[in-house]
Amino acid sequence: MAKAIITEQNYIAGNWVTGKGKEFRSYYPATAENGKIYIEADQEQVDVAVEQATKAFETVKKKSIAERAAFLESIAEELEDLGDELIEVCDMETGLGEVRLKGERARTCAQLRAFSALVKQGHWQQARIDTALPERQPLPKPDIRRIFRPMGTIAVFSASNFPLAFSILGGDTASAIAAGNCVVVKAHPSHPGTSRLCAEAMQRAILKNNYPPEMFSMIQGVSPEVSQALVQHPQLKAVGFTGSTHVGRILFDLGASRPNPIPVFAEMGSTNPMIILPLAIANNGVEIAKGLANSITLGTGQFCTKPGLILILKNKNSLEFVGNLKNALESISIGHFLNTRIQNSFQKDVKKTATVTGIEMVSTKDEGGKLFEIDAKHFLQSPKLEDEIFGPAAILINCDTINQINKIIETFGGHLTGTIFADGDPELPSIKDSLENKVGRLIFNGFPTGVEVCPSMHHGGPYPSSTFPATTSVGTAAIERFCTVKCYQNIPEELLPKALQNKNPDKILRMVNGVYTTEDI
Amino acid sequence: MAKAIITEQNYIAGNWVTGKGKEFRSYYPATAENGKIYIEADQEQVDVAVEQATKAFETVKKKSIAERAAFLESIAEELEDLGDELIEVCDMETGLGEVRLKGERARTCAQLRAFSALVKQGHWQQARIDTALPERQPLPKPDIRRIFRPMGTIAVFSASNFPLAFSILGGDTASAIAAGNCVVVKAHPSHPGTSRLCAEAMQRAILKNNYPPEMFSMIQGVSPEVSQALVQHPQLKAVGFTGSTHVGRILFDLGASRPNPIPVFAEMGSTNPMIILPLAIANNGVEIAKGLANSITLGTGQFCTKPGLILILKNKNSLEFVGNLKNALESISIGHFLNTRIQNSFQKDVKKTATVTGIEMVSTKDEGGKLFEIDAKHFLQSPKLEDEIFGPAAILINCDTINQINKIIETFGGHLTGTIFADGDPELPSIKDSLENKVGRLIFNGFPTGVEVCPSMHHGGPYPSSTFPATTSVGTAAIERFCTVKCYQNIPEELLPKALQNKNPDKILRMVNGVYTTEDI
Repeated sequence: MAKAIITEQNYIAGNWVTGKGKEFRSYYPATAENGKIYIEADQEQVDVAVEQATKAFETVKKKSIAERAAFLESIAEELEDLGDELIEVCDMETGLGEVRLKGERARTCAQLRAFSALVKQGHWQQARIDTALPERQPLPKPDIRRIFRPMGTIAVFSASNFPLAFSILGGDTASAIAAGNCVVVKAHPSHPGTSRLCAEAMQRAILKNNYPPEMFSMIQGVSPEVSQALVQHPQLKAVGFTGSTHVGRILFDLGASRPNPIPVFAEMGSTNPMIILPLAIANNGVEIAKGLANSITLGTGQFCTKPGLILILKNKNSLEFVGNLKNALESISIGHFLNTRIQNSFQKDVKKTATVTGIEMVSTKDEGGKLFEIDAKHFLQSPKLEDEIFGPAAILINCDTINQINKIIETFGGHLTGTIFADGDPELPSIKDSLENKVGRLIFNGFPTGVEVCPSMHHGGPYPSSTFPATTSVGTAAIERFCTVKCYQNIPEELLPKALQNKNPDKILRMVNGVYTTEDI
Repeated sequence: MAKAIITEQNYIAGNWVTGKGKEFRSYYPATAENGKIYIEADQEQVDVAVEQATKAFETVKKKSIAERAAFLESIAEELEDLGDELIEVCDMETGLGEVRLKGERARTCAQLRAFSALVKQGHWQQARIDTALPERQPLPKPDIRRIFRPMGTIAVFSASNFPLAFSILGGDTASAIAAGNCVVVKAHPSHPGTSRLCAEAMQRAILKNNYPPEMFSMIQGVSPEVSQALVQHPQLKAVGFTGSTHVGRILFDLGASRPNPIPVFAEMGSTNPMIILPLAIANNGVEIAKGLANSITLGTGQFCTKPGLILILKNKNSLEFVGNLKNALESISIGHFLNTRIQNSFQKDVKKTATVTGIEMVSTKDEGGKLFEIDAKHFLQSPKLEDEIFGPAAILINCDTINQINKIIETFGGHLTGTIFADGDPELPSIKDSLENKVGRLIFNGFPTGVEVCPSMHHGGPYPSSTFPATTSVGTAAIERFCTVKCYQNIPEELLPKALQNKNPDKILRMVNGVYTTEDI
């Protein structure tokens, strides 16, 4: 189904332009056909995007909080106004289906609006003021004020598995713009048409809100060179990335090894260990098995929070639990893989896992989710089993004792989430203690898929699940990644950022002389 | 003046032990004599320190907020109880003089007490709670709670120029312990005896407060291998460093290139550019020249915030200003250099600077502070002039236009501070705008030396002044460097950190369902 080349697929510094790099084809998972031909940007075009954004930053950083909030709201509106076309193109390119994609669009718009509301609230700027004490001995104390300020130009790398919520106008872009920055997004080659539409929506929002068009670029890219040029541009200030540990680490290393290092906030997924204690299985095993099978196969298992390791104690109930899990898994029809690379890599990982000494494939359906079973002793001999299999697969580990469970937990690297199912089990506190060291989000009697977008969410965890474990890519705290800090000593009031001036008309929560208050000074 | 070897100079995991590494001598700057012989730790001893601290962390992280606050208070008391001996030994090793060192001890104790008060206040934990909505459609919303938690074992590298305030019990150690961590400090070889005394004070505070002795180690080290072993230990979670750009970058690279990367928060000093506009010189030139000369020579110029670049507009008053500055500088007797390495490096830097095309040495006194003068054109041809000369030296740049000043500012890398003297000058806003991009703290009509320890202080700046510009090493916000984030979903209340439980007896400020409150839930 070859089609004519559509030019002007890169949106660079306010202009739709033809890429000067390599050609690549989009792919339609539901029909397994190749789609349109795209041309990626080249290094020179990447440079233009970053340099123009950096110039535009001098205008963008002066936008008022109200203007910034209105801009974010407007981006959400323009995204909604793309209507059915967006869902159709996105479904064609991802095979994720209309229901999921409409839900994801709603989440993406809700994220943009949450950041709009946050920006207006103002407390995220962490304004702190210590007023002068001119009479202090032996030296007078100056007036000092400190606040979060935008950084400049931020690069965002789109994820394959969230074509809207972690792509062109997704959480990274929304939080970077909410913090007052300019953004250059590298589109994911899995959904270039979706990306093009989203960039059009952004273009309209920029024009409507009188933002400088150069403040945003969307770059198509399939070659590593495009990503490298972007991360290495001397004017770039930070990077947001969601994807594989392999690519995330390459970008992190590029950022850290620059002459002027920058943070690459990479969220690289994990295996999300789950410990299901005996009483929970005894009291509620059937339901847990059903929920777990759903969580493993949700979105064809293509979630960073898919539970991939399940630790249970072998006892009289555990055999039945494994049977229930196998049956539940086999009763679910899994969907499409996002692209052939993910599909091939999943099949390769499953094949390789099946060859591990002591492992057994429990699930038998060719097309369904995959469940492996292994005992603790053999698991401990194969540390590679902790690595993420991206797709609908999980490994169940039969342990003999709680000590063995804790021993396995101790061998873990870092994961985004860790889950414990317990039902009055006396072992809960000790397992909670050891699992907490290894994960960002600890879940009790629930499933890790389904990440709430709210102020208290933390979507990050010890390495390798993310490069900066104290930061999150989901929820309003994500804004903190793209802020820097500025401090002003005895600066004339009219030159201070509004949130640091004496009057506080917006009732922003500020720390004044060590005490939180919304009052004027 | 050779002395017998004093063994047991390393405090490792609760024991005073003899180092197994290289011998080195302390140095007494005031008499230019070599002092005692010390033996540094070896790699194996570093490993013991980190591993034992990491084990102790399981106990330390369970200490209550009240226990942690009392511990910090107790460290301050023990430091004070070292009495005159500390000041004598420290003066001998640094030549900084009794007045300065008593002031620095007071600052160090004040820092410890400020962190004690902060810990009790609790808001620094940034507790956020979103309560459950079990009836929400299409899916129930779980209960999610998020909070700052300690990281584990932190390495602190002592600075030469603050033998108390940025050494064994200085700001990095205080903030790391305030956050609930264990600490391994590498002592600076410039003041090993001072370090030993401070570690003894720490040992007493640990025992009095029933903290596990293994939670703290003080390691003597002069070889790069000791520092490398510390930063590369797989169990280490973060590093605090104050020192040169050269060493800071080496440690940063070591931290970033680990199999599991860790942040190295390096504060690496800067040249602290100062712009003095014509009206300020016209109205107040004599006083500014005097203050500037004091700031350049304070502590023999061995401060991270010493002003090293002074930009002025050449006009009818500027010649007189330079003369006043030269005279003020020559009227000040500079003190001792902290060690021969710093002294030699200062002399080398001064000699090298004097050879730059177009530069002239204005100051003539052999032993005093050094002032160079250059015009903007020649300065722009010698980018190396932006580098810090550690010691009492500064370069004055004569500019022809405000545009030229702004052009020079644009060439700058990052600095901790930037200062503007202006007196109704219409150019202030534009200069403030461009300088703000290049510095962490912007100062108006004042001098950068003298860093307030308060909540709004920011002692950090764009690279190369620090590796993470959004973090500070001075002031209470320094605690944030050594915190990670944990998130709890539907976790039984009794297993949550106290600050996330429903009852809020300590009236900690928390964000509950998006709104800040000190109420119970």
